[in-house]
Amino acid sequence: MSKQHHHSYFASTTADVDAHLKQSITIKPPLSVHEAMYNFIFSTPPNLAPSLCVAACELVGGHQDQAMAAASALRVIHAAIFTHDHLPLTGRPNPTSPEAATHNSYNPNIQLLLPDAIVPFGFELLANSDDLTHNKSDRILRVIVEFTRTFGSRGTIDAQYHEKLASRFDVDSHEAKTVGWGHYPSLKKEGAMHACAAACGAILGEAHEEEVEKLRTFGLYVGMIQGYANRFIMSSTEEKKEADRIIEELTNLARQELKYFDGRNLEPFSTFLFRL
Amino acid sequence: MSKQHHHSYFASTTADVDAHLKQSITIKPPLSVHEAMYNFIFSTPPNLAPSLCVAACELVGGHQDQAMAAASALRVIHAAIFTHDHLPLTGRPNPTSPEAATHNSYNPNIQLLLPDAIVPFGFELLANSDDLTHNKSDRILRVIVEFTRTFGSRGTIDAQYHEKLASRFDVDSHEAKTVGWGHYPSLKKEGAMHACAAACGAILGEAHEEEVEKLRTFGLYVGMIQGYANRFIMSSTEEKKEADRIIEELTNLARQELKYFDGRNLEPFSTFLFRL
Repeated sequence: MSKQHHHSYFASTTADVDAHLKQSITIKPPLSVHEAMYNFIFSTPPNLAPSLCVAACELVGGHQDQAMAAASALRVIHAAIFTHDHLPLTGRPNPTSPEAATHNSYNPNIQLLLPDAIVPFGFELLANSDDLTHNKSDRILRVIVEFTRTFGSRGTIDAQYHEKLASRFDVDSHEAKTVGWGHYPSLKKEGAMHACAAACGAILGEAHEEEVEKLRTFGLYVGMIQGYANRFIMSSTEEKKEADRIIEELTNLARQELKYFDGRNLEPFSTFLFRL
Repeated sequence: MSKQHHHSYFASTTADVDAHLKQSITIKPPLSVHEAMYNFIFSTPPNLAPSLCVAACELVGGHQDQAMAAASALRVIHAAIFTHDHLPLTGRPNPTSPEAATHNSYNPNIQLLLPDAIVPFGFELLANSDDLTHNKSDRILRVIVEFTRTFGSRGTIDAQYHEKLASRFDVDSHEAKTVGWGHYPSLKKEGAMHACAAACGAILGEAHEEEVEKLRTFGLYVGMIQGYANRFIMSSTEEKKEADRIIEELTNLARQELKYFDGRNLEPFSTFLFRL
């Protein structure tokens, strides 16, 4: 399998999700709200979570369409988190990241308020995907609960708070590492998001519980790998080495989880371990 | 009916909602997140929306319990909006309101982040209230969609943005009124929230569509009355007179909507028009 092939699964599912989202977001007055929301969402660099959600759904025998609302909601909520992570007002890491150039071209009040509009929009996508003819409301409600736990006080917000504490210190300092730079946010932020993505894809694909939990754990490792890769990209050689060691270990653990699905089409899954 | 009686319906339903919420929020580590969340929610002055949600449910023949999750979610999301409205960093109206003393005793980063945890918690309360034995998932999903529309880009955020624009000017200035101080936020913020509260109470009480829409319109007027009352409390005599005239008109319109329910127990509903 070529590297090209792996990249295309990510690229094609991301394109499908964006196409689905563009149909769902209508730009209407007030433009100052809706146009900015549109720009924030589509200028946020996509992460692996929506693709992973689709792949998990397909792995357990579901169709891509069954996961599309959840994958879109993941893209949208990631954009909300990205926006709040790059507020120029705060002392967060990389507030001037070139990736956030579009976001930072808006005034800080818009950057502050809009994620509060984007998150409910994510839940709207999920709840609206209910289809009375298919008796799937219970699965959608379960996915909504998974999302609220992942992105609320027990998940993202707690991780952002730890990052916020850590950002008071120099990235390489002992204090920064103690209060949570690195492991904890990688676990609670990227880890939790990708675990949620894989579990929800499986739930929507009508997986049984063991499949859901295997995929959740796989997603957790994938997300943590992303978290380590993002955080230690600028670190000193020694720290980079340590991060590489952890990433290798997490990759092995992730592969273990996939063994459960031996015999099924695991091709798309190499995307999530190969991209590093 | 005494004033005391009216007040007690609001007081008793608010107490019921708070008791329900206190069972649902567990204070656990990290205390810096969960304790602050608890304090933000319960130190926010309650508004009429949760009571209205319960009253609408009862009016159409439902039991208070059926509306309790939605009423709690309204209390919680109101707290998130209240927190963002009183951020000391922004030039919003009344950032130093004594009502926000608890909120402002936390550092601004906590005030900025926590509403992003509180809103998902509101959705979690709703989605978790599903009960597989009662086949009510469809109604809960419908309520979640109502919430997302009310509190997202088409609702609260748009209103907050207009208030933000207006806050650049002197409250009494022509510019402030033009960009939206007063009518527009009253409609989109308090109006939309109370319309949502009444409609959702009715939906959960298994109302038919005409009842839902009558109660939604009633809620819209009640919310707008609250919006006018809140905004013009400090205004000049002349403006206060104009606001009083509008409030009287809205009160009459609200009473009209209730005529549809003649013959049922409308006692609790006088609460929502009497408190002014």
